[in-house]
Amino acid sequence: MTTGVAELARRTYVALVHHPVLDKEGQTVTTAVTNLDIHDIARASRTFGLAGYFVVTPITAQRELVGQIVGHWTHGAGRAHNDKRTDAVSLVRIVPALADAIEQVARQNDQAGNPFVVATGARPRKETLSAAELREARIPEQSSMLLVFGTGWGLAPEVFASADAVLEPICGPDPNDHYNHLSVRSAVAIVLDRLFATPGRA
Amino acid sequence: MTTGVAELARRTYVALVHHPVLDKEGQTVTTAVTNLDIHDIARASRTFGLAGYFVVTPITAQRELVGQIVGHWTHGAGRAHNDKRTDAVSLVRIVPALADAIEQVARQNDQAGNPFVVATGARPRKETLSAAELREARIPEQSSMLLVFGTGWGLAPEVFASADAVLEPICGPDPNDHYNHLSVRSAVAIVLDRLFATPGRA
Repeated sequence: MTTGVAELARRTYVALVHHPVLDKEGQTVTTAVTNLDIHDIARASRTFGLAGYFVVTPITAQRELVGQIVGHWTHGAGRAHNDKRTDAVSLVRIVPALADAIEQVARQNDQAGNPFVVATGARPRKETLSAAELREARIPEQSSMLLVFGTGWGLAPEVFASADAVLEPICGPDPNDHYNHLSVRSAVAIVLDRLFATPGRA
Repeated sequence: MTTGVAELARRTYVALVHHPVLDKEGQTVTTAVTNLDIHDIARASRTFGLAGYFVVTPITAQRELVGQIVGHWTHGAGRAHNDKRTDAVSLVRIVPALADAIEQVARQNDQAGNPFVVATGARPRKETLSAAELREARIPEQSSMLLVFGTGWGLAPEVFASADAVLEPICGPDPNDHYNHLSVRSAVAIVLDRLFATPGRA
């Protein structure tokens, strides 16, 4: 079981989408990349043994910025300062659109075709899967999995419409309390833990 | 069961400790407060229905800074901009030492005395508890729980020595891969999810 989970993690990628996502009013916008989204999600991706982490933004200057941050840690001064961070940030790939992430994953796994694309969001929806259901039964053998997270106020509807599955939202313990405004950094960490954690006993 | 979990969450607090914590070389230091630690952990604490979130730093100027950030969102311009953020940041309490957090929790719950203090860390240790064990059996009835997280390279040994329990570290799926350098923001989110989440079906 543990081996199976580690094996699935090794063919799983995260995508952090900055477009198309919604703003507070429900309009489709492009959000800005933040330094900490790169680091926190890279560290979580590395901790849970993933294959890669795509930062998705159509803005050229933002892709260049991400490239500079990644370069600092993988080739620059950061490497000497903290090699654990280098290890994590090395997972980062920078692409203009989610379709490019899907294509890159498909190319790396040419026997199995496109990855199984899983959209995530905070709002309750019909026909969502739990992490356990996703892990145990739904990913075609050999397929890669691409877990897609939205910045801003969440992924635009077309991302959900084109996904192969939607993960259930993360909810607190009180069924009468509908507050679930986690940061995307927290949401990624929780989803990876639900899918891939193992007991950490001494 | 769900009701019991929500009830335990309502008597649970998080403490984010900036001293005493370790640096990369294992020396005890005081780290700087970061804006995003306040926001991300407040949002996770609110999502999982906790009673409060203590930011612990002995540096007066840092406590004032945290007070200004909290004030911006609870009384200032931030309130009109995003009331969900106000809701989360209202949970923040600012104290100079972990002992002050313990005392404040004890005072709010005078029938049950000191909270049950749980230390967390990334390194494997003997006699750690899983989140399920902690949730299901270990917290004295009526007691509050204080979950303690370290910044920097983790809590200093004396915090572990004086805690009532230690939570097992968060580990990825590959037993031969010992990388678990999550951000403290990610670690808090995962621990709260393990303790207090419920299914999020539509």
